[in-house]
Amino acid sequence: MQLGVIGLGRMGQIVVNRVLDAGHDVVAFDLSEEAVATAAEAGAEPASSVDDFASRLDDEKRIWLMVPAGEAVDATLDELDPHLDADDVVVDGGNSHFEASVRRAEATDAAYLDCGTSGGPAGAELGFSLMVGGPEWAYEAMTPVFDAVATGPAGHDRMGPAGSGHYVKMVHNGVEYALMQAYGEGFELLADGRYDLDLEAVARTWNNGAVIRSWLLELCEEAFREEGTDLGDVADHVSGGSTGTWTVQEALEQEVPVPLIYQALAERFDSRNDGRFSRRLANRLRYGFGRHEVVREE
Amino acid sequence: MQLGVIGLGRMGQIVVNRVLDAGHDVVAFDLSEEAVATAAEAGAEPASSVDDFASRLDDEKRIWLMVPAGEAVDATLDELDPHLDADDVVVDGGNSHFEASVRRAEATDAAYLDCGTSGGPAGAELGFSLMVGGPEWAYEAMTPVFDAVATGPAGHDRMGPAGSGHYVKMVHNGVEYALMQAYGEGFELLADGRYDLDLEAVARTWNNGAVIRSWLLELCEEAFREEGTDLGDVADHVSGGSTGTWTVQEALEQEVPVPLIYQALAERFDSRNDGRFSRRLANRLRYGFGRHEVVREE
Amino acid sequence: MQLGVIGLGRMGQIVVNRVLDAGHDVVAFDLSEEAVATAAEAGAEPASSVDDFASRLDDEKRIWLMVPAGEAVDATLDELDPHLDADDVVVDGGNSHFEASVRRAEATDAAYLDCGTSGGPAGAELGFSLMVGGPEWAYEAMTPVFDAVATGPAGHDRMGPAGSGHYVKMVHNGVEYALMQAYGEGFELLADGRYDLDLEAVARTWNNGAVIRSWLLELCEEAFREEGTDLGDVADHVSGGSTGTWTVQEALEQEVPVPLIYQALAERFDSRNDGRFSRRLANRLRYGFGRHEVVREE
Amino acid sequence: MQLGVIGLGRMGQIVVNRVLDAGHDVVAFDLSEEAVATAAEAGAEPASSVDDFASRLDDEKRIWLMVPAGEAVDATLDELDPHLDADDVVVDGGNSHFEASVRRAEATDAAYLDCGTSGGPAGAELGFSLMVGGPEWAYEAMTPVFDAVATGPAGHDRMGPAGSGHYVKMVHNGVEYALMQAYGEGFELLADGRYDLDLEAVARTWNNGAVIRSWLLELCEEAFREEGTDLGDVADHVSGGSTGTWTVQEALEQEVPVPLIYQALAERFDSRNDGRFSRRLANRLRYGFGRHEVVREE
Repeated sequence: MQLGVIGLGRMGQIVVNRVLDAGHDVVAFDLSEEAVATAAEAGAEPASSVDDFASRLDDEKRIWLMVPAGEAVDATLDELDPHLDADDVVVDGGNSHFEASVRRAEATDAAYLDCGTSGGPAGAELGFSLMVGGPEWAYEAMTPVFDAVATGPAGHDRMGPAGSGHYVKMVHNGVEYALMQAYGEGFELLADGRYDLDLEAVARTWNNGAVIRSWLLELCEEAFREEGTDLGDVADHVSGGSTGTWTVQEALEQEVPVPLIYQALAERFDSRNDGRFSRRLANRLRYGFGRHEVVREE
Repeated sequence: MQLGVIGLGRMGQIVVNRVLDAGHDVVAFDLSEEAVATAAEAGAEPASSVDDFASRLDDEKRIWLMVPAGEAVDATLDELDPHLDADDVVVDGGNSHFEASVRRAEATDAAYLDCGTSGGPAGAELGFSLMVGGPEWAYEAMTPVFDAVATGPAGHDRMGPAGSGHYVKMVHNGVEYALMQAYGEGFELLADGRYDLDLEAVARTWNNGAVIRSWLLELCEEAFREEGTDLGDVADHVSGGSTGTWTVQEALEQEVPVPLIYQALAERFDSRNDGRFSRRLANRLRYGFGRHEVVREE
Repeated sequence: MQLGVIGLGRMGQIVVNRVLDAGHDVVAFDLSEEAVATAAEAGAEPASSVDDFASRLDDEKRIWLMVPAGEAVDATLDELDPHLDADDVVVDGGNSHFEASVRRAEATDAAYLDCGTSGGPAGAELGFSLMVGGPEWAYEAMTPVFDAVATGPAGHDRMGPAGSGHYVKMVHNGVEYALMQAYGEGFELLADGRYDLDLEAVARTWNNGAVIRSWLLELCEEAFREEGTDLGDVADHVSGGSTGTWTVQEALEQEVPVPLIYQALAERFDSRNDGRFSRRLANRLRYGFGRHEVVREE
Repeated sequence: MQLGVIGLGRMGQIVVNRVLDAGHDVVAFDLSEEAVATAAEAGAEPASSVDDFASRLDDEKRIWLMVPAGEAVDATLDELDPHLDADDVVVDGGNSHFEASVRRAEATDAAYLDCGTSGGPAGAELGFSLMVGGPEWAYEAMTPVFDAVATGPAGHDRMGPAGSGHYVKMVHNGVEYALMQAYGEGFELLADGRYDLDLEAVARTWNNGAVIRSWLLELCEEAFREEGTDLGDVADHVSGGSTGTWTVQEALEQEVPVPLIYQALAERFDSRNDGRFSRRLANRLRYGFGRHEVVREE
């Protein structure tokens, strides 16, 4: 089958390559001519504009958007809109908020599939996990593409109606924050604890048969191997946080307690804060009630 | 009545003064001759050694220890021991662990009262809150002294048998950690939030009639008045932590969840840590699965 | 001066009474005729409709709204709107979201003061803590009324521009959740711990001089006195949560960690949940990896 | 080589079988004759007592203890003691506290290896992850056995000196608690959230390529498959908790913040509590300051 791909960053190129490798045709467009050229070298048909892109697609258009979540998705959809009708299918493979996906599904004439995509750069070889929301017929129409982009048929599934794909992906990421922090707490205790341990050896031993083995733990093992058991100059500064924030916001809305996910998110905020006001106040209060010496900045 | 006081630091001097002010006699001893002299100036009878101290006390000895929790208590008790019998009463007014108090109550011939003391330097004028554990007769025998040291009769009570006074004080301190951190979180949000606020004015307004008014909040108000609304050079470094640690340890033993007290304690540990390993690992893992740039220390 | 009050529930009647007691005139309106009659008995001038209410007010109208947060505020403002101009002042004394207050301040021709009100029914006698946002001149024009409704001049202050009063009140409530839960953890450990304690006596002793003394702790003391040391049939079910949720949402927005406030809110959600899915899964997983027996519902 | 195994429960039998399958000889003893018979059927040489067991072993004894952590280990070592000398090696493959292992290593004449064993019943086929502490020569002497019991050479490693194996295993289990609870929170939000989802399908999709894929997530998938997407009658009651408690205790000692591990442990306590006192107090306090109706037990 034929797939049009808009958005040829790292993830978009992987989609292009995996779909080509599975024997399908790809039409590729990006605002960066260089990115289009890269896709063309890989075997895709290059498009020079959204109009050109649309004109190169079959009558029943199958389109994969891999553009940054937010305004870029709306801008692209606005440009595509005149070319779309009810027989077409548009997949948003980015990290859009599920409510935006529900809104877009209602606004577009095409069938709209929100597709949570997990697996990162490693997915180039292994394939991704795809969590898809939207109309069943559209999901089925896209199955050959999903088979190619995912790890295989088991690596994608239709979660439910519009928004459900990005909803499940949002929760996936919230869990991801907590898993990382959980491993981090364990390794921090080992690093600061009673024994002088080789954390790469710990992670490797755990990855071979222990209950907590996982892909993230393999990445821990890799991190210790590449950075050293003390993580070298890796800073205490965790960027990102939008999908985790969305998860906590939704959990507040649903009144579901998620203390571990919340705390993992709070740790990120904390890592980006210079001096927590709450603790500075506690420092001063200890003087107030106990005349404990106030620690001052030098 | 007559009271012997051993340990004439800041808190011990307050005990001496309040007991003298109430019209009682005080015999005072400390390893520091200067501290003894200070108590003598206030009207106490100075003692030059533990033996001298014991010889100056009435037959039914009434003794208040205000020495640092830990080995100092045991050392003092060892020295006192030959002079004590079953008619005597010893009060430990420090922050001893309740299990140490149970052990000491069993080991000494005298009646032993463990007395949690709260109120800090402000207690010099207002009197303290005294949580007392030990034999009922001994608590009653000491009532005139407790009336004087506490805010009055309502400011002291017998909690139960040996250890219960320090047990209740331990939990008091655990709660104290959480209250400080709770106020701290609120003020941090106000300090970093949408409005440019005068935090002293906020605290003062709250202290006049709001649900969350308290003595700790009055100390917050004082802190903002004295340090400025941004707390000036007060550092993000909260010292101390032993009674909070004991509280969490006991809660683990009793299988009682205390997440707020735990988190308040963890914030202290965090404030004393240079670079949290857990978050450094999360930083690196984000590269592992998403090729997000690793933030490096400069 | 003259004050018009709309909304004569428990809190509105207290406002009426305190303003009358301070020697001011009050015009009172509520949809409930009975509530109007109660205010009239106290000395207020009754109004039979919003139009009637408006016509009875002086040229420079001074109006206090004490209606439930949400649609009732907008509905009342809509009705008042034709009668308002730039010389008038409207106070919203309810628990509105600060963003709604900003919006209303922009929409109304009158000067709009958002006024966070704390102190509960006890405020009838003691007066309230009032956190006010909005134009300075309007705050000053209302000062005699604020003096009467608050605990006095120290019990009210202008926090800043529109919304800041409800913003500070929102954070106040978030802190309130955490303080309650912190005391609760302490008393839970005492209730389930090693000693058989009289929790009313503990609370009373603490309230007399201890660092953690507070109005909430006085309410704990009252609760144990009235319900018994085991709290009798008081259920593990904490209602409410909107202002706490707003606080956490705003903290997410500002990227300020508030783990204690979050956890206190999560405890409320938890108390209203029948069987936490997360823990049911953990129960089952322990069988999965360790063949630990699954505990089943009977 | 020859291995003596004491303790023939589920885990001990797996050790026997894997060592036999690797072509080694096994002498087996347990207080249960039935368990000894089972091992004998598998090919082990049965022993009728500890003395008999010791007499059947080669001069340089190689012994694996797989008895319940605690007194059973000490009792077994006491009985073995007269038969042991410095050429012998004893492995404790159970979940002993690392401090007990340090103590035992010092007390026994034999070389003592503390061996954290993870992998559960699934290890029967896959082999275990073995974290070993103790003298290097003893670890090397046991390598053929470790190769057989573990997933292979990568599945075991010497962590460091005495106690380090059980130390690393303790932390492993603390992390395990947090991982389970993190997945649980995610699935709870999905179960109670906006979409009607098939959680087995979610777990399967995640296990095929998503960042959070893991063995525990495979067990989640299995749980949903076997119990249904709503987990049927699986109760909100999580048993166990000793290794998690040890982890938190050690983290307190080392002043390392482990909020996620702590919270996961607290959730277990919570699941075993009937009515949290802390929340019952909050319920009552809301009446105290706001006259919110108290929810009562029926």
